[in-house]
Amino acid sequence: MPGRTARRRVLRLALPDEGRPGGAERAEHRADLLAAEEPLGIRVNGAALTMTMRTPGDDIELAAGFLVGEAIVATRADVAEVKLCDGTSCGHGGHDGLGNIADVALAAGVTVAPGARRSFMTTSACGICGKTSIADICDLPHAALAADETRFGAAMLASLPDRLRDGQRVFSRTGGLHAAGLFTAAGELVAVREDVGRHNAVDKVVGWALLDGRLPLSGHVLLVSGRASFELVQKAVLAGIPLLAAVSAPSSLAADLAQEAGLTLVGFLRGRSMNVYTGEHRVL
Amino acid sequence: MPGRTARRRVLRLALPDEGRPGGAERAEHRADLLAAEEPLGIRVNGAALTMTMRTPGDDIELAAGFLVGEAIVATRADVAEVKLCDGTSCGHGGHDGLGNIADVALAAGVTVAPGARRSFMTTSACGICGKTSIADICDLPHAALAADETRFGAAMLASLPDRLRDGQRVFSRTGGLHAAGLFTAAGELVAVREDVGRHNAVDKVVGWALLDGRLPLSGHVLLVSGRASFELVQKAVLAGIPLLAAVSAPSSLAADLAQEAGLTLVGFLRGRSMNVYTGEHRVL
Repeated sequence: MPGRTARRRVLRLALPDEGRPGGAERAEHRADLLAAEEPLGIRVNGAALTMTMRTPGDDIELAAGFLVGEAIVATRADVAEVKLCDGTSCGHGGHDGLGNIADVALAAGVTVAPGARRSFMTTSACGICGKTSIADICDLPHAALAADETRFGAAMLASLPDRLRDGQRVFSRTGGLHAAGLFTAAGELVAVREDVGRHNAVDKVVGWALLDGRLPLSGHVLLVSGRASFELVQKAVLAGIPLLAAVSAPSSLAADLAQEAGLTLVGFLRGRSMNVYTGEHRVL
Repeated sequence: MPGRTARRRVLRLALPDEGRPGGAERAEHRADLLAAEEPLGIRVNGAALTMTMRTPGDDIELAAGFLVGEAIVATRADVAEVKLCDGTSCGHGGHDGLGNIADVALAAGVTVAPGARRSFMTTSACGICGKTSIADICDLPHAALAADETRFGAAMLASLPDRLRDGQRVFSRTGGLHAAGLFTAAGELVAVREDVGRHNAVDKVVGWALLDGRLPLSGHVLLVSGRASFELVQKAVLAGIPLLAAVSAPSSLAADLAQEAGLTLVGFLRGRSMNVYTGEHRVL
């Protein structure tokens, strides 16, 4: 199993302050701990589906969560098994790189549609041109989300970034990881995952919840450490999460999709303030 | 042409400080400016190659730069034409969504190899498993990079983040954009581009340079506003840039690929200090 961090030799340079030109420049070699990044291949029913650059760890959850975000699976019953390649299932004998392939077996009757959401845009000759609404781009099964009547206190939301940071294990040592945290409406931390990629961190949380039989995640909050993109809103909607909060800014399309899907989108959640972009009826 | 920013209505909430429970909570609706995010389809010689979620603007450069990062083109002569779909070339009549498809025509003799770097990992049954070195994963044409004898002053490098920020137009209004800046060895800003995706910002800079006949970018520095991933190192190497600097942390694989390709990788470039992960002989 590849590690979550990797030690590398680094030259640390510190220049004198510009206001103090007489100061000494310092240069020293030392060991630095970096966030690990390695490729993970995801295979479904024996066929390669995608490859993502991720921080090793929680890879089975990552693969499962990725399939939720692609609208291929929606509940625990849709998945027969997820396992890491042991060097035989992929046709190779013993070799390095073990643990960088996740094999997903879908339950009987669950299939990967040829028109799966992401791939259609790259295979059709003109996939986006001519699409005039978000519904055309991605037809999300979000009827249940709009019906989620959970309410969330603003003071509870303001407390979440500190709780997320407390739950991170690797960031404080490398400064190089995004985090995603799942919380109850009372602000209780349910799960936190870290990754060099924000989307992977979300997939890991959602995949954990899927495999634990918790989807859809009605009544929960998902907090991400950075910005909120269209892709993250998609993932939250498909996991049935009614409130997505981000420490930083959302994009225009993230706000538009959240509006259309009935998701509450909170951005710039910092200190004692926040911006509520959509679904403000859920924030007390 | 879609805009780079979009105005959305937002509910701004500010809670009283925790130490001052008697303070009043403030809630007001106001207009907020968000970084625009829209899909851009990239077609090559009439066939769809990929789709990326990007901030509109510099789309022709983005498409050209993306092809450099895929090792499909390397110099201006490899590209016959890049244009935005005008609603006829894609087979659609007049409709919305114009400007969200870029059409690239390659020069005669330049082709998209079926074994192109990124796609092979998603189409082979076990693309990563069994690969034991980075050279196996991506065989980059980087011989020229190791021969780049340019030297870069540490004080010059320390000045770049402020210069990059000064060159950003949209970030200060939305707080939602990554930036990539291209500088000479003397610290002169040559080009700066912004995007919701860090990789897109780099593609826009590299594509601009390609179309301006400047590739390979020997003797230049590329600065990115966030972290340095494997993907960004790949893009810098393929553009012939000898020094990649990031304001935040690199990943392990970013450092490993930089080492192998002969790229100088600088991280945590903040204030008056920095970490040099690889190629320190270029930093004075």
